[in-house]
Amino acid sequence: MQHTEYTIGIDIGGTNTTWGIVNRKGTIFETGAIKTRDYPTINLFFDDLKKQIQPLIGQYGKEQINGIGIGAPQANFYTGEIIDAANLPWKGILKIKEMSEAHFGLHTTVTNDANATAIGEMTYGAAKGMDNFIVVTLGTGVGSGIVANGRLIYGHTGMAGELGHTIVIPNGRQCGCGRKGCLETYTSATGIVTTALEFLKKDEQASGNPKWLCNIYKATGRVKAHEIYEAAVAGDDTAIAIFNYTGEILGQSLANVAAITEPQAIILFGGLAQAGTYILNPTRQAMEENLLFCYKGNIALIQSGLEERNASILGAAAIGWL
Amino acid sequence: MQHTEYTIGIDIGGTNTTWGIVNRKGTIFETGAIKTRDYPTINLFFDDLKKQIQPLIGQYGKEQINGIGIGAPQANFYTGEIIDAANLPWKGILKIKEMSEAHFGLHTTVTNDANATAIGEMTYGAAKGMDNFIVVTLGTGVGSGIVANGRLIYGHTGMAGELGHTIVIPNGRQCGCGRKGCLETYTSATGIVTTALEFLKKDEQASGNPKWLCNIYKATGRVKAHEIYEAAVAGDDTAIAIFNYTGEILGQSLANVAAITEPQAIILFGGLAQAGTYILNPTRQAMEENLLFCYKGNIALIQSGLEERNASILGAAAIGWL
Repeated sequence: MQHTEYTIGIDIGGTNTTWGIVNRKGTIFETGAIKTRDYPTINLFFDDLKKQIQPLIGQYGKEQINGIGIGAPQANFYTGEIIDAANLPWKGILKIKEMSEAHFGLHTTVTNDANATAIGEMTYGAAKGMDNFIVVTLGTGVGSGIVANGRLIYGHTGMAGELGHTIVIPNGRQCGCGRKGCLETYTSATGIVTTALEFLKKDEQASGNPKWLCNIYKATGRVKAHEIYEAAVAGDDTAIAIFNYTGEILGQSLANVAAITEPQAIILFGGLAQAGTYILNPTRQAMEENLLFCYKGNIALIQSGLEERNASILGAAAIGWL
Repeated sequence: MQHTEYTIGIDIGGTNTTWGIVNRKGTIFETGAIKTRDYPTINLFFDDLKKQIQPLIGQYGKEQINGIGIGAPQANFYTGEIIDAANLPWKGILKIKEMSEAHFGLHTTVTNDANATAIGEMTYGAAKGMDNFIVVTLGTGVGSGIVANGRLIYGHTGMAGELGHTIVIPNGRQCGCGRKGCLETYTSATGIVTTALEFLKKDEQASGNPKWLCNIYKATGRVKAHEIYEAAVAGDDTAIAIFNYTGEILGQSLANVAAITEPQAIILFGGLAQAGTYILNPTRQAMEENLLFCYKGNIALIQSGLEERNASILGAAAIGWL
């Protein structure tokens, strides 16, 4: 088989769809983007995608391109389909693997965002050379991609890795999935905002210093995830307490999942992970406190090695090598 | 490579060590046993093991034997060693793979009991043809063997699969591992006895019917795990409530681990699993209630397909094919 130089990574998101031509080292040569919601049907979407990407395939040489990787919400590695994705404009069954192969004439592999990120970390990021690790994506929701024996765990029907929907606090916060107390309700961007509101309602009269977050809340009646981070950087006690609370729940959960697959590292990715030590330190502390003795000190908790800006393209491109 | 007919399975337990010659179908041709604690050193133990097993190797033909599989507490698949096993008479580092290969001149693979059971189920039992499943061993402790993508998950250093030491009730019962609230403290043989004592102390005056278990407790000041089962069979309300409580905690835990690896089936093995529907029904109900919608109705909860009497030999024999 000929040695190919590139893959094409396509990330289909609820708002934007982005792509890039990527080489084996993870260098991105061409990128582009369209608005996912501009297309009333998946067919029109793929027709336009073809108009934009086909010239690149010609330019780089089809024989130099190993394949296409597509990361998309709820995309199933086994079937190549998306069924009723909550965050996409098109409902029903979307046969995206089949459509991509028909449009581009290139072997296409699809999976969901968290799995693509895990393979991205293994190929280009913080998990290079690791056979056992877990990526936890802390975004609007909480996802995970779990690698064991050097292979991603897809599960029986392709639905594995729903760490965000493990119940961590019985009868806890209401989750969008219909159950209560899922990890996602505490450690997603939405979850940390809920925590902030709970803390601020309690602490409005308290001595939190310098009351940055409290003042934002008083002025606007709400807080945003990035404001919690900025307040923490400014030394706001309440903001730091919010991160500590979030990290404690996340760390307890990670200690439990570590006992299942014994990863070499757990990699945090996504908006909340960008809070750096504010989230990493309390998470690591709670994880270590709750780890079984034989794992203590042996499981690294690290930040993603993928540049956030390019991570979704790199994740998708990485599965183009499969 | 020549097609071999047999493996030798050796199960080293805290009390007994048993072995057998097993063919590809799981038929056991020769079995034997020695008392593990009769040997002051591991060397004397292996010397005697050789005296017993070497004649069998001659009889069946060394060239017909694919290898030796050893299941033992805390045995590490990667290193072939056991380090300071709590349940064995010999402390320090036991190089059992190396010793077996030196004594028998046959390739030897070792792993812990729960992992051996999982490979046994895949080779000879309820998990034949499954690529994604979990075996949960409910014995003196609680162990697990997790298979994903057709391969057992050993983890980074061979310590994966400690489902029994995930914390299911924060600040719950004291566990032997030093932490509190581990699954093992509720769903092992010891755990269910603890539950029974808690229930009986509360219910001594209650209307439990026919008070079988209550009477045993009043007469002897204790109950044993098998007595709880026998009482349940006799229709004792308290005994049934004890199984329901145990199954509820187990089912909640299984719903969480199912979200990690999405198994096709979860197989219950060991003493408590032999209580059949008394433990399976409440566990299944709690698991289903707590499963994320996409898994509901799709994950089978079943009993081991290995005869309990021979299971440890079959598990060990199964890893002899690796």
